[in-house]
Amino acid sequence: MSSVRVAGTGLTSFGEYPERTSRDLFAEASATALADSDVPRDDVDAVLYGNFMGELSEHQGHQGPLMAEAAGVTAPATRYEAACASSGMALRDAVIRLRNGECDVVLVGGAERMTNLGTAGATEALAIAADDLWEVRAGMTFPGAYALMATAYFETYGGDREDLAHIAAKNHENALTNEKAQYQRALSVEDVLEAPTVSSPLGLYDSCPLSDGAAAVVLVSEAYADEHDLDAPVAITGTGQGGDRMALHDREYLARSPAAREAGEQAYADAEIGPEDVDLAEVHDCFTIAEVLALEALDLEQVGEGISAARDGRTTPDGDTPINLSGGLKAKGHPVGATGVSQVAEVATLLAGDHPNSEYVEGATTGVAHNAGGTVASAVVHVLEVVA
Amino acid sequence: MSSVRVAGTGLTSFGEYPERTSRDLFAEASATALADSDVPRDDVDAVLYGNFMGELSEHQGHQGPLMAEAAGVTAPATRYEAACASSGMALRDAVIRLRNGECDVVLVGGAERMTNLGTAGATEALAIAADDLWEVRAGMTFPGAYALMATAYFETYGGDREDLAHIAAKNHENALTNEKAQYQRALSVEDVLEAPTVSSPLGLYDSCPLSDGAAAVVLVSEAYADEHDLDAPVAITGTGQGGDRMALHDREYLARSPAAREAGEQAYADAEIGPEDVDLAEVHDCFTIAEVLALEALDLEQVGEGISAARDGRTTPDGDTPINLSGGLKAKGHPVGATGVSQVAEVATLLAGDHPNSEYVEGATTGVAHNAGGTVASAVVHVLEVVA
Repeated sequence: MSSVRVAGTGLTSFGEYPERTSRDLFAEASATALADSDVPRDDVDAVLYGNFMGELSEHQGHQGPLMAEAAGVTAPATRYEAACASSGMALRDAVIRLRNGECDVVLVGGAERMTNLGTAGATEALAIAADDLWEVRAGMTFPGAYALMATAYFETYGGDREDLAHIAAKNHENALTNEKAQYQRALSVEDVLEAPTVSSPLGLYDSCPLSDGAAAVVLVSEAYADEHDLDAPVAITGTGQGGDRMALHDREYLARSPAAREAGEQAYADAEIGPEDVDLAEVHDCFTIAEVLALEALDLEQVGEGISAARDGRTTPDGDTPINLSGGLKAKGHPVGATGVSQVAEVATLLAGDHPNSEYVEGATTGVAHNAGGTVASAVVHVLEVVA
Repeated sequence: MSSVRVAGTGLTSFGEYPERTSRDLFAEASATALADSDVPRDDVDAVLYGNFMGELSEHQGHQGPLMAEAAGVTAPATRYEAACASSGMALRDAVIRLRNGECDVVLVGGAERMTNLGTAGATEALAIAADDLWEVRAGMTFPGAYALMATAYFETYGGDREDLAHIAAKNHENALTNEKAQYQRALSVEDVLEAPTVSSPLGLYDSCPLSDGAAAVVLVSEAYADEHDLDAPVAITGTGQGGDRMALHDREYLARSPAAREAGEQAYADAEIGPEDVDLAEVHDCFTIAEVLALEALDLEQVGEGISAARDGRTTPDGDTPINLSGGLKAKGHPVGATGVSQVAEVATLLAGDHPNSEYVEGATTGVAHNAGGTVASAVVHVLEVVA
């Protein structure tokens, strides 16, 4: 089984670019990743691409071939859709194809155009990630779903809004050095607590923004990297996927993410590591409470303890396991289809020492990326390690 | 590399069922396939699922987890979207995962609910498979696109509407014994020629219908089939994928399908066969002209000669290479997301001798399934062979 290397990464700025199409965004991200990789376009064997809501925001399905064209490659292309985990799924498949020799070079990416729909339109579009018959028609939107999860967490394990506010403040602080981030401005715990309530107990600053953007990575087999003498010191050594019932009312616990646990356990076993080996992680903090559930599902925090991780400094840049040094979905932004690949790009550059925040994790060898869809009915986890 | 076996197949009736949701349709197809396979639900390692337009027809994305639930399995699920090739892509990925040992059992399927949109609504929804900026906004819909291809074919290679009418008549004749087919009624060449023009030179009966339906297959590794003594005599021995520019105006030739050629050549090489070994095929005849282009791309007919294949009896049931013995998209119906997997199910049952039309292909050992997206900007081809 061949090792899989990250040869190049590329991100657009994340933010409000309602006039930019997803193909325009992906053209930029893929060109950046290809240039960073030193891999010629003709060597790309496949384009695997994640997008969530193109049908609704751009009246555009069948984006695979469009994105190959935007990237300037002729390789066959496949689009994956798993709500907010769309490009994480594409990336997982790329790892599988590279390992078994099906491909030597895969361009993986994702893009999303959302803000052209406006806040209400985008919120309605995002709701297609939930069960339309049994949740959405009953009035559920994602802020409400995560508010239910937060309420259940507080009731079961304790914690309060101030604990969550520390997560938002941490991630905004982390984004200050990230020139691609949607918000490069500090947010205090007070700011978060004083913000308008969106869905109690979650306020405006407990939520990630609506974002447009794209991300791409060039993944290559170890043999290809060696043969072409590529600068690709980071490998993807573990991959895992988990699934859960779509509707919240079908879950045994509201305040746990078994799909993420399943994906994490698979990825750790695949990489032959344990959570104690993880030096840093990018986790899917679409809401502050989601970061808590992710840390616990990945065994980076004990169940019931994740709530205090940011407040007590365990996940801050100078903590034991810095989380979302990129700023996370919360501050970097969350162009849905791009998020999974952008997380892997951030972990890879953090580990390679090429990230503005690499200084906080000097000597780190192992990072994790966790990407979730809907209320974590889909989850995909990757382990990255420095190998060269 | 493990061989991949077809352990079970399941199709719903294809037709107009506007009140049935895609999850309802897939529950039926997957239950049929699982029962046919004798594989217990707990053994399913992954659900790979194709759907095209759920966002528009059901306000439902993120269908992977919903379909795992509909099938009664807990395995992680991934949704693929490549327009009309959506479930063909899912199937290709299942083959790759089974070969490299990532999985032992994969439930692959697809579903589409379309007729609830009405004819105009569905036509507009289908158009998202084309380039929204450069084709759809200029007024292009798929009947128009395939009419351009037919016109180009006639001008380049000759042929006429009557040649195409023989294809429609053949496929309707084939569907007479297919109880799942949308149209179990004969259509004469005269009927086709006298039908109203939809987009010249194509008439109403040159086009497949709008359909609702679902399809599923259970694929297992050879080791699993042997260990559990499954009745699974047919293997998927070749897989290939091709891509092309999305917009027709970016193609060198209108009357060729290079993406299908690429996919076919890959699949033949993968199976270590040539087109001369093919005993039967299911090809993507969304319009009559599409069957011609498919046969030529797969080297089952020489370029310029596919137009006469049905008329001259080469592709009829008693011909050398019967094509679309199921009735094809034309008569069996085309619930878009289900089509690719349904074609593989038909080829597998034809080869296994379990199909009403197996009598026409007694002793056949090798079949091909060809699934295309849009104007063949995506194509996926599989080779199936009798191995036990």
